[in-house]
Amino acid sequence: MQEKIRVGVLGATGAVGQRFVELLADHPWFELTALTASDASAGRRYGDACRWLLSSDMPPNMTDMPVRETSPTIECDLVFSALPGGLAGPVEEEFAAAGYGVFSNASAHRQDPDVPLLIPEVNPDHLSLIATQRARRGWERGFIITNPNCSAVMLTMALAPLQDVFGVRSVVVNTMQGLSGAGYPGVPSLDALDNVIPFIGGEEDKLALEPCKMLGKVRDGGVEFAGFAISAHCNRVPVREGHLETVSVALENPAELEEIPAAWRDWRPLPQQLNLPTAPRPPLVVRTEPDRPQTRLDRDAGRGMAVSVGRVRSCDVLDIRFVVLGHNTIRGAAGASVLNAELMVAQEMIDT
Amino acid sequence: MQEKIRVGVLGATGAVGQRFVELLADHPWFELTALTASDASAGRRYGDACRWLLSSDMPPNMTDMPVRETSPTIECDLVFSALPGGLAGPVEEEFAAAGYGVFSNASAHRQDPDVPLLIPEVNPDHLSLIATQRARRGWERGFIITNPNCSAVMLTMALAPLQDVFGVRSVVVNTMQGLSGAGYPGVPSLDALDNVIPFIGGEEDKLALEPCKMLGKVRDGGVEFAGFAISAHCNRVPVREGHLETVSVALENPAELEEIPAAWRDWRPLPQQLNLPTAPRPPLVVRTEPDRPQTRLDRDAGRGMAVSVGRVRSCDVLDIRFVVLGHNTIRGAAGASVLNAELMVAQEMIDT
Amino acid sequence: MQEKIRVGVLGATGAVGQRFVELLADHPWFELTALTASDASAGRRYGDACRWLLSSDMPPNMTDMPVRETSPTIECDLVFSALPGGLAGPVEEEFAAAGYGVFSNASAHRQDPDVPLLIPEVNPDHLSLIATQRARRGWERGFIITNPNCSAVMLTMALAPLQDVFGVRSVVVNTMQGLSGAGYPGVPSLDALDNVIPFIGGEEDKLALEPCKMLGKVRDGGVEFAGFAISAHCNRVPVREGHLETVSVALENPAELEEIPAAWRDWRPLPQQLNLPTAPRPPLVVRTEPDRPQTRLDRDAGRGMAVSVGRVRSCDVLDIRFVVLGHNTIRGAAGASVLNAELMVAQEMIDT
Amino acid sequence: MQEKIRVGVLGATGAVGQRFVELLADHPWFELTALTASDASAGRRYGDACRWLLSSDMPPNMTDMPVRETSPTIECDLVFSALPGGLAGPVEEEFAAAGYGVFSNASAHRQDPDVPLLIPEVNPDHLSLIATQRARRGWERGFIITNPNCSAVMLTMALAPLQDVFGVRSVVVNTMQGLSGAGYPGVPSLDALDNVIPFIGGEEDKLALEPCKMLGKVRDGGVEFAGFAISAHCNRVPVREGHLETVSVALENPAELEEIPAAWRDWRPLPQQLNLPTAPRPPLVVRTEPDRPQTRLDRDAGRGMAVSVGRVRSCDVLDIRFVVLGHNTIRGAAGASVLNAELMVAQEMIDT
Repeated sequence: MQEKIRVGVLGATGAVGQRFVELLADHPWFELTALTASDASAGRRYGDACRWLLSSDMPPNMTDMPVRETSPTIECDLVFSALPGGLAGPVEEEFAAAGYGVFSNASAHRQDPDVPLLIPEVNPDHLSLIATQRARRGWERGFIITNPNCSAVMLTMALAPLQDVFGVRSVVVNTMQGLSGAGYPGVPSLDALDNVIPFIGGEEDKLALEPCKMLGKVRDGGVEFAGFAISAHCNRVPVREGHLETVSVALENPAELEEIPAAWRDWRPLPQQLNLPTAPRPPLVVRTEPDRPQTRLDRDAGRGMAVSVGRVRSCDVLDIRFVVLGHNTIRGAAGASVLNAELMVAQEMIDT
Repeated sequence: MQEKIRVGVLGATGAVGQRFVELLADHPWFELTALTASDASAGRRYGDACRWLLSSDMPPNMTDMPVRETSPTIECDLVFSALPGGLAGPVEEEFAAAGYGVFSNASAHRQDPDVPLLIPEVNPDHLSLIATQRARRGWERGFIITNPNCSAVMLTMALAPLQDVFGVRSVVVNTMQGLSGAGYPGVPSLDALDNVIPFIGGEEDKLALEPCKMLGKVRDGGVEFAGFAISAHCNRVPVREGHLETVSVALENPAELEEIPAAWRDWRPLPQQLNLPTAPRPPLVVRTEPDRPQTRLDRDAGRGMAVSVGRVRSCDVLDIRFVVLGHNTIRGAAGASVLNAELMVAQEMIDT
Repeated sequence: MQEKIRVGVLGATGAVGQRFVELLADHPWFELTALTASDASAGRRYGDACRWLLSSDMPPNMTDMPVRETSPTIECDLVFSALPGGLAGPVEEEFAAAGYGVFSNASAHRQDPDVPLLIPEVNPDHLSLIATQRARRGWERGFIITNPNCSAVMLTMALAPLQDVFGVRSVVVNTMQGLSGAGYPGVPSLDALDNVIPFIGGEEDKLALEPCKMLGKVRDGGVEFAGFAISAHCNRVPVREGHLETVSVALENPAELEEIPAAWRDWRPLPQQLNLPTAPRPPLVVRTEPDRPQTRLDRDAGRGMAVSVGRVRSCDVLDIRFVVLGHNTIRGAAGASVLNAELMVAQEMIDT
Repeated sequence: MQEKIRVGVLGATGAVGQRFVELLADHPWFELTALTASDASAGRRYGDACRWLLSSDMPPNMTDMPVRETSPTIECDLVFSALPGGLAGPVEEEFAAAGYGVFSNASAHRQDPDVPLLIPEVNPDHLSLIATQRARRGWERGFIITNPNCSAVMLTMALAPLQDVFGVRSVVVNTMQGLSGAGYPGVPSLDALDNVIPFIGGEEDKLALEPCKMLGKVRDGGVEFAGFAISAHCNRVPVREGHLETVSVALENPAELEEIPAAWRDWRPLPQQLNLPTAPRPPLVVRTEPDRPQTRLDRDAGRGMAVSVGRVRSCDVLDIRFVVLGHNTIRGAAGASVLNAELMVAQEMIDT
C-alpha cells in the first residue's frame, strides 16, 4: 500500500465521532481528511467546535482541521458515520449514491436485507451482499456497511465459535451497560449515580435480532438468519465504559464444560490472519480467574478491541453460563467500523 | 399484648446488626434489652463500640447500652442473630438449647431439614417444623428460624403468586447487588467504583436453592422442595443499597401477560391480614412505568420491606420476563427476621 | 391559626419545585392549592407533567392537581418561586405587584437593596425592608423575600455566631457541592463520575457576596454589608446531595479554640424560639468526631434543615479552620424558603 | 550508559509497589531484578503473590519473577521502597547501611535533617545532603532519598516558580484526593460512594510542612525551611485517582494576574534540561479553559508525571487563587521516586 486512503468522519463532534477521530488520526492505512458536523459547527476549527470527552488528548493534527457540513462533497473516498439515528438513514444513502464507501455505526440500515451487518471475525463473507446492494440501488462505486449494536458485538463474538462447534439453540442474556453508550450529554448524573436503570430504549430488540443476522448465511442476495431465539434484559449501571453481559446458552449438541473455553481459544478468524492493524490478538481473551472479566479491569483488553470471556459453568435451565465483556465505544462502535474498513482494504474491495 | 417481649441482638455492631438495632429500638411489641458483640467490644457502651453506618442517627436510647459477650446468659427471650458465617452455626444452637428463640440472618442453618427458612408472606406454614426441630434436638422452649439470602427474598416473593396461579417450571435470574450486601468494610472502593464484578462467593448457589425450599411443602417433618430449576448470575454493581434482579420464567400453565401483574396485585398474604407492624402494604408494589423499578427510586418502598416488580414482557426463550427489586439489608436481612418474629408472636407461638 | 394559608409553587415540576411540593404537601400552616409550570405542562395533571426525582414518593394528594400557567391569577395568597434564572426576575415582580407574597429561591432579586436576603436564624430583622420595598415599588400587599444560594446558607449560619461573639475579618472557603445543586438534567454523568470539576458558573461570586449582605445591618431602607472579605473556591464532586465546605476564618478578636463550638452551641436564634414547624433543633449540629461532618452521614440532620459543623482547629494563615455541611436542596433551597414564610406568619406579617 | 542498573522494589505487591513495577518493567536505564514483599508472599511467583490493581496488564516479564523477603541480600544496586509506614524507617536504614541506594516513597525519613526530600524539578541541589548523611551515619555507598507526600508534590511544583519570581508569603490549600491514595483495600466502598470525608490522618500536617522543606535552602548540612505558612484542608472524594487542590496564595511581591501563568510557562527545570526518561514536557501544563484542570481529564497529562494548573484569579483575602492537579500514584508516588533515581544517574551520582 503506497498511498493512504482518504477518509472522513460524519458527525465528528459527538461521543462516537470523537472515538473515530482518535482511532483514525494516526492510522497506517487511512488519512483523515474531512470532518463533518451539524450546520451550527460547520466552518469552525474542530478544536473549537468539539467538546472533547476522551481521556486521551485531542490528536494535535486535528485541532485546526475545519469542520464541514455533512454533504457528499467532502474530499475523501470512505466515510465513517457517527450520525444520530434519524439523520443517518437518508444521509448515508446520499453518500453511497454519490460514490462514497460508507461505514456506519448507526442502526438505520442494519436490518436492510442487502446491507452487511458486519463483524470481520464473524461474517466476513457477508461482504458479498455489496454486489446485490449496488445492483438493487443503482450505485456504481458507493456502498453501506454497518457494524452492530454495542451489546450485540460482544455477545456475537462469544457465540460465534460456539455456533460453529456445537450449534446454539437459545440464549438468555443480561447486560450491564456503561454510561458512554448513551452518548453525551446522555444519562443525567442524578439518574446514574447509586442506581441501576433496567431499561434502554430499543436495546433489547436489537440484541435479540442482530446476532441472528450476523450468524446467518447469505442466500440469494439476502441473509438467512440463524434460527435460535435470544431473550435480552438490558440495564444501565453506573460505570463509565464497558458492557458486561451474563449469558445462559442452550446448545444443539452436547458439550463438556472445558470444551467451551477451548472453542474460544481455538478460534482463528480472518482479521487476525490478515493481520489487520486494528484486529486484536487474540480476539477473545479467555479469563480463568473466578471473578473475571470485570468491567474496569478488562474493558481495555486489546486496546479496547478484544472481547473478554470467562466464568464458564453449567446452567441448570439452559446448558451453559458465562460472562462476556467488551469496550462499548471502541469494539462496540468506532473501532468496529474501522476494522470493517480494514477488512475491505485488505481484500482489495476498495478502489482508490 | 400488655408487656413488650424482651429481645436481644447477637452481633449488634456489624452492618446487619445495626439494622436490627434501628428496627427494634422503637418497636411496638419488642423491647431491645441486650446487645452482644465480639469479646473485644464486650463491656463498652454501644455508642463507643459501634461505628454507626446508617444515615439515620443511632437511636439515642441505645448509645449507653452496655455491649455483652455473645453467650446465652443475656436477659431476653428472643434473639436476632447477625453473627458472621462460621460463628453463627454453633452459637445459635447454643442459644436455642438454652431456651431462647433464635431468629437468624445467617446461612448456617438455612438448609437444615428441620429449620424453617421463612418469608411470612410465602410459607408461614413452615413454622410447623419447630415441633420436629424441638423433638429431634431435645430443645424445650428454644428454636431457630432463618430468613433467606437477600437476593432470594425478592425473587421468591415475586415467584410465589406465580407458582400459586400458574406453576413455575424454570427460572433464569441475573442480580445486580448493592455494596451493603457485602457488609462492612466489605468491598474496597477501588474494586467497586466504575466497575461490575460478576462474582459473589456462594451467592449463586443460595439463590438457586433457597427459593425451592421456601416454595416447597412441609412433609413428614421436612420440606419437599419445589421442583423447578433456577439458574443464577450474581453481580456486584456500584450502588450502595438495593438488589435489582432481571428474571426469565417458564410457567407450567399458559398465562396472558396481563395476568402476571394481576396475580401480584391479587396476592393477599398472611402478614398483611394479621396487620403485623413491619408488614408492608402492599407486599408487592407493581410498577407500570417502562423503566421501573429502579434501584435508587424504589428500594425504600414500604420502608424497605416491600418488593417492587415491573417490566413484565414475554420471553422468547422461557415464557415471561420481568424485573424485581428489594432493599437488601431491610427486607433482605434484618427486617425479614423481625417480620418472622412478629408472625410467631401474632400466632401466639412465643411464650413470654 | 384556624385556617391554613393557601400557597402555590411557581415552577413546580423542576428539581427545587419538587422539594417545595414535598415540604408543603402536608404542612401544618399552609395548604398547597396551586402548581404552575411552563406553558407546555399547563393543563396536565401534576403526576403526568412531572418526572419525580426524589426518593420519597410524590405526595398522593398532589398527583391529580392540575398544573397551571405561571400567571398571577392562581388561587392562593403566597407563592414559592422555583423559577429558572432569566424568568424569575420579571415574573416574581409581576406576582408581587398583583398582591402575592413571593418567597423566591431564584437569585434575580437577592441583591436588590430593598429585598431581604433572609435566613430566619441570622437576620430576621431584615424583614423590615418590606416597608421600603412596598413604598418604593408601589405594591400594597405583595412583596418579595429571597433565600440565599445553597452554599451561602451553610457558611452564613456557621459564621453568624462567630460574627456576634468575635467578629469576622476574612474568610477563605472551599466548597464540595453535590450534583443536585445543578438541577435536572444538570450535570451529565460522563462529566460527573470519577471526576472533580473545579468550576460552577457564578457560584464563587454569590458565595463571596451573599453572606456579607445577610450579616449586614439594615440602615435607611437598605443593607449596610458586613465588612469582611470572602474568597471562595467552588467545586462539583460526584455526590448526589449535600454541600460540604472547608473554611478558614480570621477573627476580629482573639478566640480560644474551644470557644468556637461553644459559640455555635450557645446560639439561640428566633425560629427555634418561635417553634417554627420547619426550624431544626438545634440549628447547628456540632460534631466532635475527627472525621465529621461527612456528606452522606450528616446531610439529613434535622430533616435536612440543620447545618452540621466540626473539625475546629487553628489555622496558621488565618485564625481558625473548620468544616460545615448542609443539605443543598432542603436547607439550601426549598426548605429555606418555607422557613422564611413561617417566620412571617409567626410574626403576623401575612394578612390572610 | 552501556549496562542497565539493577534495581529492586521493596513492598512490590501493594498499590504503590505495583506502580513501581509498571514504571520499571521496561525502563531504558534500569533493569528490575528483585521484588520483595512480606514473608507470607516470599517464595511465590509475583503473578501469584500479587492482586494486580492497575488497568494496564501486569508486565509479562514480571509474572514469573520470584518474590523475595525484604532483606538487604537481594541482587541489585538501588531499591525503590513502597514499604508501609512503621516498617519503612528501620528497613530502609538497614538497606542503606548495606550499601544500597534507597529511593523511598514512605514518610519515615522525609523530615530527617540529612535526608533529601526531593522533587528533581524543584530542589535538585538538596542531593548535596547525601554527603552529610553518609558522614553522619557512617554509610559508605548507601543513601536514602525520599519523595514527598502525594498532595505536597503538586502544590510544591505549582509554588516553586512563584517562590522564585514573586516570593510566597502564605498559602491556604484545600485538597480533593482520590481513593487510590489510601492504598488497597483502603477506603471501604460504603464510606466512599456518595460521600466526602473531610479527614485524612496526618495529611494536613505533611502538606503544611513538606513544601517548606523542599523550597528551603541547604545550609550547613541541613535544610533551612522556606519561611511561609501553609494551612491545609484535606478531603477524600469519590474519584479513583488524581488529587485536585484549590489554592489561595499571598505573595511577597506584587504580581499581575497574567504573570502567574507566565511564570509557570517560563519554568525550565533541570530534569527537562537533562532529558530524563520520566520527566514530563512541560512539567506544568497550564490550562486556560474556565473549568480545567479536571481530575478525570487531566490526571494522565504527561503520562501521569505532569502537574496541571489553571483557573488563576485574584483572591480577596490573600493575593491569588488557582487550581492544581496531579496523578497521586504516579507523580505523587512511584513516578516521583523513579525520577529521583534518574536525576542521580544523569548526574553520575550512582556508582555501578
